[in-house]
Amino acid sequence: MRVRNKPWADDLITENPQAIVLNPEHYRGQWQSRFKSVQPLHVEIGTGKGQFLIGMAVAHPEFNFVGIELQKSVLAAALKQSLPAELPNLQWVLADGQGVNDFFEPREVTQLYLNFSDPWPKTRHEKRRLTYKSFLKSYAEVLGDGGQLQFKTDNRHLFEYSIMSMTSFGLNLTELSLDLHADVAASQGELENIETEYEQKFAAKGQPIYRLVAQFPKK
Amino acid sequence: MRVRNKPWADDLITENPQAIVLNPEHYRGQWQSRFKSVQPLHVEIGTGKGQFLIGMAVAHPEFNFVGIELQKSVLAAALKQSLPAELPNLQWVLADGQGVNDFFEPREVTQLYLNFSDPWPKTRHEKRRLTYKSFLKSYAEVLGDGGQLQFKTDNRHLFEYSIMSMTSFGLNLTELSLDLHADVAASQGELENIETEYEQKFAAKGQPIYRLVAQFPKK
Repeated sequence: MRVRNKPWADDLITENPQAIVLNPEHYRGQWQSRFKSVQPLHVEIGTGKGQFLIGMAVAHPEFNFVGIELQKSVLAAALKQSLPAELPNLQWVLADGQGVNDFFEPREVTQLYLNFSDPWPKTRHEKRRLTYKSFLKSYAEVLGDGGQLQFKTDNRHLFEYSIMSMTSFGLNLTELSLDLHADVAASQGELENIETEYEQKFAAKGQPIYRLVAQFPKK
Repeated sequence: MRVRNKPWADDLITENPQAIVLNPEHYRGQWQSRFKSVQPLHVEIGTGKGQFLIGMAVAHPEFNFVGIELQKSVLAAALKQSLPAELPNLQWVLADGQGVNDFFEPREVTQLYLNFSDPWPKTRHEKRRLTYKSFLKSYAEVLGDGGQLQFKTDNRHLFEYSIMSMTSFGLNLTELSLDLHADVAASQGELENIETEYEQKFAAKGQPIYRLVAQFPKK
């Protein structure tokens, strides 16, 4: 799919180098220089219009956040949304998330988020799923000891596949919910869940959202 | 709960020693002597009224099946149901399934089934859940190399717990469905699913049945 070029997106990106990075390789090993405070780095791969990560950055000033997105006009919407708040702990990256190893040094990242990733339902496209073993290997490299991967999706088959792929890779599941919104409601505020745009629309239909947290084995 | 004694159950059991075992310890290491043919042994823990295991024994004459159930009147119903077919590959055991290590020698069993086990929802009862690590340890002992555990339930929290407990124990998930009946329908006959009594009633309400197959690591 060719996304229609949006001239305002180019302008917004050019005018805000303080909030968006176009050359992430340049910051490999030096991401903390992009933030006001040196603190644990959390990265979302496929950040979309950014609602999740903006919500996380507001709720967690004690962490630094990087949101990576490939589609310029989509990421520009995230940038536009985030600018008024001038969040000192949030940065956007316009790039293909598949290159995480080129963007981050080993152990530079504390936590990774995958939210509603493309399910690639056909078996012949298995290698493109962001929870395929080659991606897990990349994540293992950029994450430090005890680093975590948080994953949410509404796609049942992708979730089933991901549980098997992750546990077969040696990841330890520390949290698992097969109906996140029911669990959040039942927790009476104890369980935090920042929703993505897609999640908000989807959950309104009453279908379950799946979520897990997986821990990488100590190196 | 005290189950009301049913005199007909006692009589039926006494009259059919060829189909039901009251002293499973006696057959430890010698279960094949209870069957017409020597072939892989499949065991269901908590077999209830036996619908699942009778269906399996009919569909799979190439395996021997043992169904263990603690409640006499419930198992008598299974026995009653199975007698007319005179299945040469099916045996019932009236005993507490927690004693599997006393009933089977190491590697005597090829496959274990847990269907709709008691969820024991309270955290303080975690140790009673049949997928708690102490039970997994017992299963690992009686199962041979590559032995499998098949598990079905409608209880979301028990299923979530069991996935985490099993993978943390080192089991490898080889199959996983978060909506078994949808998958069976979509498979157009490729995916076999023998239903339990409980499953039949429950699935009619349209709520999902969860299922997994876990493989024990090679010893």
